[in-house]
Amino acid sequence: MTITVLGFDGDDTLWHNEDRFNVTQSELRDLIRRHVPDADVDKHLLEVEMKNLGMYGYGVKSFTLSMLETAIQLTEGRIPSSDLEVILGWCKRMLNEPTELLEGVEASLRELGERYDLLLITMGDLFDQESKLARSGLGDAFLGVEILSEKNVASYRAVFERRGIRPEEFVMVGNSLRFDVAPVIALGARAIHVPFHITWQHAQVPEESIPSGGWRRIAHISELGEALAEL
Amino acid sequence: MTITVLGFDGDDTLWHNEDRFNVTQSELRDLIRRHVPDADVDKHLLEVEMKNLGMYGYGVKSFTLSMLETAIQLTEGRIPSSDLEVILGWCKRMLNEPTELLEGVEASLRELGERYDLLLITMGDLFDQESKLARSGLGDAFLGVEILSEKNVASYRAVFERRGIRPEEFVMVGNSLRFDVAPVIALGARAIHVPFHITWQHAQVPEESIPSGGWRRIAHISELGEALAEL
Repeated sequence: MTITVLGFDGDDTLWHNEDRFNVTQSELRDLIRRHVPDADVDKHLLEVEMKNLGMYGYGVKSFTLSMLETAIQLTEGRIPSSDLEVILGWCKRMLNEPTELLEGVEASLRELGERYDLLLITMGDLFDQESKLARSGLGDAFLGVEILSEKNVASYRAVFERRGIRPEEFVMVGNSLRFDVAPVIALGARAIHVPFHITWQHAQVPEESIPSGGWRRIAHISELGEALAEL
Repeated sequence: MTITVLGFDGDDTLWHNEDRFNVTQSELRDLIRRHVPDADVDKHLLEVEMKNLGMYGYGVKSFTLSMLETAIQLTEGRIPSSDLEVILGWCKRMLNEPTELLEGVEASLRELGERYDLLLITMGDLFDQESKLARSGLGDAFLGVEILSEKNVASYRAVFERRGIRPEEFVMVGNSLRFDVAPVIALGARAIHVPFHITWQHAQVPEESIPSGGWRRIAHISELGEALAEL
């Protein structure tokens, strides 16, 4: 079946994201270890994030609230509030950073936009994602934008229904096997996996757990046109 | 022109919201005044919220981050982090509270749903609003749901375009003159204002600044059917 619609993930597919979280997380590590030198900050933060996910959802604000909780817990309340103010400052810095496109993105989108309808299908905080898209300069490359609170079979199905998309004519492009590949191929659509050099632990899924058909991997977004022709 | 589509605001139109923020804000007042007895907490918090709005957007998480910032600033960093942990607890409490429908909402929606297409058009945090709707039990009353990061002329226009709605056949129902009435009538659609007993300062707008035609006020959602017939 002819491909007519391409969906693109945003974070770490079109623009830098996870590396910025990583930078902040390493600053948090240093900050907490000034008070508790042997604290396992990464482990505790991930636990707090996972516990809060069902309440907070994804995004910088959720991450910040979990960082604050982690800092207070690991120091048993000994961290001064001036240090917590520093964490609040990181939140604002992350939200204000310019959207930095990955290499080759702009050219690829312009070229593919001549042959396919392009949708941005991204996950996370509505306000933050809209703001990132606005700052990316890519707004007019997309026929439509879907910001989902969660990427799973149900939420992709809702996008297909809302937009009258037949799964057979749709290909999703993204860096996460869990969020951009697995649910899409479960619906009978196809996917292209473009790994980013780092992946948030929660966005990972064992490759063996995904059917081998219906998707393929490319190393760089510039290979996308060719990969689509061969899909 | 015949009315075919009704848009409903969520917070303080269908379910309680602002009173919960008020309860938490009065707790914040007490907490900070234990350290700074004469602090003007409400004034400072509103200033911090307005300063952060363009970065954070609306919602409980944004409110919490601004409460933390206010507490640290007003106490000049003297508030212990155990008190800030209390504020983080309020955030979770607010996010977990059951969605409490305003009186008469369910019956009105069921009845109007037989005569009009109903849309939920709400503003704020995507994850939080979806979660509130899910817990409200009203999910199946609506033909569609639009969660906007901001309610203004541009965002309502985008909803009309996305859904193929002609303004003349649309009526918005909500508690905010600023967010539910003014932008809608500016687009040539109509509105019904159902005031709630408290309104967030930022959601207020002088009534004189709005054209007098195209909208009317009712005291209670149960009067909506009749008001629509007379609009």
